[in-house]
Amino acid sequence: MPQSDSFNRRIVLAARPRGLPTAADFRLEETALPILGEGQVLLRTLYLSLDPYMRELMNEIGPAYAPSVQLGAPMAGGTVNRIVASKHPRFRAGTLVLGSAGWQDYAVSNGTDLVPLGEMAQPSQALGVLGMPAFTAYVGLVDIGRPAPGETVVVAAAAGAVGAVVGQIAKLMGARVVGIAGGAEKCRHVVEELGFDVCLDRRDPQLAQRLAAACPDGIDVYFENVGGAVFDAVLPLLNIGARVPVCGVIAHYNDLAPPPGPDRLPKTMSTVLQKRIRMQGFIILDHYADRFEAFSRDMGDWVSTGRVKQREDVVDGLENAPAAFTGLLEGRNFGKLVVRVADS
Amino acid sequence: MPQSDSFNRRIVLAARPRGLPTAADFRLEETALPILGEGQVLLRTLYLSLDPYMRELMNEIGPAYAPSVQLGAPMAGGTVNRIVASKHPRFRAGTLVLGSAGWQDYAVSNGTDLVPLGEMAQPSQALGVLGMPAFTAYVGLVDIGRPAPGETVVVAAAAGAVGAVVGQIAKLMGARVVGIAGGAEKCRHVVEELGFDVCLDRRDPQLAQRLAAACPDGIDVYFENVGGAVFDAVLPLLNIGARVPVCGVIAHYNDLAPPPGPDRLPKTMSTVLQKRIRMQGFIILDHYADRFEAFSRDMGDWVSTGRVKQREDVVDGLENAPAAFTGLLEGRNFGKLVVRVADS
Repeated sequence: MPQSDSFNRRIVLAARPRGLPTAADFRLEETALPILGEGQVLLRTLYLSLDPYMRELMNEIGPAYAPSVQLGAPMAGGTVNRIVASKHPRFRAGTLVLGSAGWQDYAVSNGTDLVPLGEMAQPSQALGVLGMPAFTAYVGLVDIGRPAPGETVVVAAAAGAVGAVVGQIAKLMGARVVGIAGGAEKCRHVVEELGFDVCLDRRDPQLAQRLAAACPDGIDVYFENVGGAVFDAVLPLLNIGARVPVCGVIAHYNDLAPPPGPDRLPKTMSTVLQKRIRMQGFIILDHYADRFEAFSRDMGDWVSTGRVKQREDVVDGLENAPAAFTGLLEGRNFGKLVVRVADS
Repeated sequence: MPQSDSFNRRIVLAARPRGLPTAADFRLEETALPILGEGQVLLRTLYLSLDPYMRELMNEIGPAYAPSVQLGAPMAGGTVNRIVASKHPRFRAGTLVLGSAGWQDYAVSNGTDLVPLGEMAQPSQALGVLGMPAFTAYVGLVDIGRPAPGETVVVAAAAGAVGAVVGQIAKLMGARVVGIAGGAEKCRHVVEELGFDVCLDRRDPQLAQRLAAACPDGIDVYFENVGGAVFDAVLPLLNIGARVPVCGVIAHYNDLAPPPGPDRLPKTMSTVLQKRIRMQGFIILDHYADRFEAFSRDMGDWVSTGRVKQREDVVDGLENAPAAFTGLLEGRNFGKLVVRVADS
């Protein structure tokens, strides 16, 4: 079902998920095109980014960094848009912009959330390797993880939008990099295409032993974006003075309640203490003002010279966003997940 | 049983405790006085410091920062000693020193672990408000917690050797300070004598609600020295950008295994992420070279002018150290716990 010129399709939050979202938690609606007021632009969505944080916005009590999506409202999300009409003095029709139109074909904006993109060979990169996920990797690794040359960096979801970039930047910084990813095909990609030193299968029942073998000098930086069993395998290997940037805990976003025991917190705190670990959470929204310019310069250079690559997992059609999003939470995507909503 | 001039009493580790140490885990032995070699001094113990970290040294696998005590060996510990004989060119008999003689009347030293104390009106302060516990408070609060004026600092074990100093330094830095301590008498002392703004009883079944009421602007620094239920009450109150120096988890030192569930780690990590919290473990041994001089200058000034006070809980007699130590782990001490082994 392609985009129309005469009406808007949008995917709204139909119900708050219990655990993993299902199709019934979303509803595809058709509405009239939004009406453009003075000082506004009309945006058509070309690409919609799907990212794990969106799961947290579906809960009644959302995360501390962003409001929840209201029941019946369109799902929120970063987008690449074409401006199709403008009553705004600074934006011309035809311009390609980075926006936050959410899961829908059309939206209006007063321009404050828009970043002009200029001409891009692959505009979806503005949602991935040149955008928020890669910026998350950059701030978390460069500013918080701070690996020194020769140190060991471990990152999970290594074939995903953030993890893949973490590992490639760590290699550029001279670190030894061990990735963890779901399955042999992703692991092969991570080592052969992205240049990680090692990649382990997260489903391997011997993960803890294999990680220990892959990190003979221990772990100096663990970029935490998953939680769960990977964290348990990492914890005993952390070196004195290790850094743990905390970017996400996707393994727990669908938890309905604290998981059953044993309680892993005391052991974690005791390790933090004894190993003098610095564990630091961050939300990428805080860092645009200070660091996005440096990121754009560095990453633009790295991407254009082929030193950082990113595989994209492109899903066609807005109507397929809910299933793709559920797959993302299960780790079924392979690379940065984007929905192609329209071609141009 | 007083100290003798002709033999040494020492308390050795008789068995590795299962949970809280009992009398059977220690053994008082009498041995010959140690023989002095060239380049050594003979130390007589005046005061022995009892500190929670010692519990970790009693396990077969000790903490990462110090070796375990071997079965049959004297318990380790910081001491104030008189040099009673010297074959060392730099130490004279009669000098008072800070040492690490452990739980015994006499020990020999080659001098590398000794710090001359000069004349002190109250030498036991070298083990408390002018020594390791207060230095721990200083580094953890000033260097890691970094409270700004008007911010809210929470510290547990507020009548103890570290917590009492944390709160007083925080007040000197202009923070609002909420302590948590065991029982009404300690709480009164913490507020009336030490100048905390509020002190809550950790045994209050309404602790979480009372802490929330006592911290209307949330918590900016939580100095973690206990773990357990206090942590649970603190976690939801942490502000964005809060700092959590991790100095100890006394609530868990006697755990035989990870406690039963629910598993509190995912909620903790999720809070660390959403609130952009910096949680940082530290071991005070790492900081003597860089920071002890600044601490000594500041704290010497604060103590001599009465701006920082410390109540001491003095137990008489080496033979009473085991029971006093077990009491410390149960929170039965009131102030910095020291054993007076000899008078001069």
